[in-house]
Amino acid sequence: MRTYLDCYPCFLRQALDAARFAGAGEEAQIQVIQETLALLQTLDPSSTPPVVGEAIHRAVRERVGHSDPYRGVKRNATEQALRLRAWIAVRIADAVDPFEEAVRIAVAGNIIDFGPSAVYDLERALAEVTERPLAINDLGALRRALTRAASVLYIADNAGETVFDRALIEILDLDVTYAVKGAPVLNDATLEDAQAAGLDSCATLLSTGSDAPGTILDRTSDEFRRAYEAAEVIVAKGQANYETLSPGDPRIFFLLKAKCPVIARDLGVEPGGLIVKQGGSNLDA
Amino acid sequence: MRTYLDCYPCFLRQALDAARFAGAGEEAQIQVIQETLALLQTLDPSSTPPVVGEAIHRAVRERVGHSDPYRGVKRNATEQALRLRAWIAVRIADAVDPFEEAVRIAVAGNIIDFGPSAVYDLERALAEVTERPLAINDLGALRRALTRAASVLYIADNAGETVFDRALIEILDLDVTYAVKGAPVLNDATLEDAQAAGLDSCATLLSTGSDAPGTILDRTSDEFRRAYEAAEVIVAKGQANYETLSPGDPRIFFLLKAKCPVIARDLGVEPGGLIVKQGGSNLDA
Repeated sequence: MRTYLDCYPCFLRQALDAARFAGAGEEAQIQVIQETLALLQTLDPSSTPPVVGEAIHRAVRERVGHSDPYRGVKRNATEQALRLRAWIAVRIADAVDPFEEAVRIAVAGNIIDFGPSAVYDLERALAEVTERPLAINDLGALRRALTRAASVLYIADNAGETVFDRALIEILDLDVTYAVKGAPVLNDATLEDAQAAGLDSCATLLSTGSDAPGTILDRTSDEFRRAYEAAEVIVAKGQANYETLSPGDPRIFFLLKAKCPVIARDLGVEPGGLIVKQGGSNLDA
Repeated sequence: MRTYLDCYPCFLRQALDAARFAGAGEEAQIQVIQETLALLQTLDPSSTPPVVGEAIHRAVRERVGHSDPYRGVKRNATEQALRLRAWIAVRIADAVDPFEEAVRIAVAGNIIDFGPSAVYDLERALAEVTERPLAINDLGALRRALTRAASVLYIADNAGETVFDRALIEILDLDVTYAVKGAPVLNDATLEDAQAAGLDSCATLLSTGSDAPGTILDRTSDEFRRAYEAAEVIVAKGQANYETLSPGDPRIFFLLKAKCPVIARDLGVEPGGLIVKQGGSNLDA
């Protein structure tokens, strides 16, 4: 997905959020704003938003002298989610269709995202899990694909959301490779964040080797690209993976909450919509 | 009120909105984004937001070749509000305290503002009028001031909101001067917009002589400044008037809905709060 003009104000807000999360003072915040204004003038608007985001967040990290501005909010999000483990387990065990419930919970966990906004309402997102129908529902195709496959490549999105992914992975009788960022960007999960959420207990952890939001394949490591090319089924979590990965590949299932109005419009759904979308399907939608 | 760093993303979004309301094509929209990015780098952040807004909206109008980008939405807002005249009249007539009801309706009308967002929910704002307590309530002081005065200078904000102002003005037994923008900016009311809303039937219309949002006194005409200096009581509608006029002048009553989170924080209220605030009061709040 290309960068829309609506993304520009959002990038500027994201840069300011990142500076503040890193504890930057007023003077450094002003410098971040000025540098982001200059950077946005030079970037190619035909790039995907994560390509632009990669450059902006690198510049912010350098300016504020902090390698992981979102470290604190990532830790809090993981701890908050871990406290919900028992609740999640009961929800899934008691559900008429535990697989569907686990998928929906994994999608709801995608609310833990500091990209579209500096605040989110996890409680409300979880309450919606069963009340709100999926805005795009390729659940049947996902179920069939996972039944036939022996393994799945699960591309993570945010720290904390990892705990909700874990609940889904734990009910799959499959060999799961859980891919996380090679270095911090936004509140995206890194190896450290995935370990803190206990993903190493149910999946093989793999770094994408990249610090860009989403999955920009030519920025990833050879190891990740081999895993990607060989994958039978790919679960790609979150908005940025939808923005960067091929919409035409039927191996990919995009699981996300369409928080951003531009992405919602691109998907043809209302903002906030819960999405389970197979690549290659609904291309005319 | 000075410009906060949070205002920068909002200015960029406003510029894009203005270009789109003017019907600008993709290429012109890109130019508007680029020019606004450049402009924001050169502006003095110690200025008030309306000083920055004035420069940005002038540049957009020039770029898109449209003297009044919001003309269409202003006309629609006025027509929509005029259709509510009978409903407003009943609400005020049936109220236990018609003056308070009319003030609350005039405050609720301040939702019709394309500054903080390109969309607003008038129905919801009107439904809140009586349900929601005023977040800052200097209604008693306003009542006393208007009882003692023979005249009032009423500084307007947005087209459409004018109709709600008219309902308040019509129950005042006072000589009212209704001040509007000298030329278009955002969806702020001009003479043409005030006439379309029938304000000439209940007040003397006066131009501020300025096309800046709010009231930047040294950009206004001599005639307006004389009226301002001589005024017994001043009603100043909307966020931009709060941002630009002296918070210490007890002749001024700021009537607004605090839609923007930065202004809400400055006022010490929750976003969306309904404000009737006398200048000089609550300065320690």
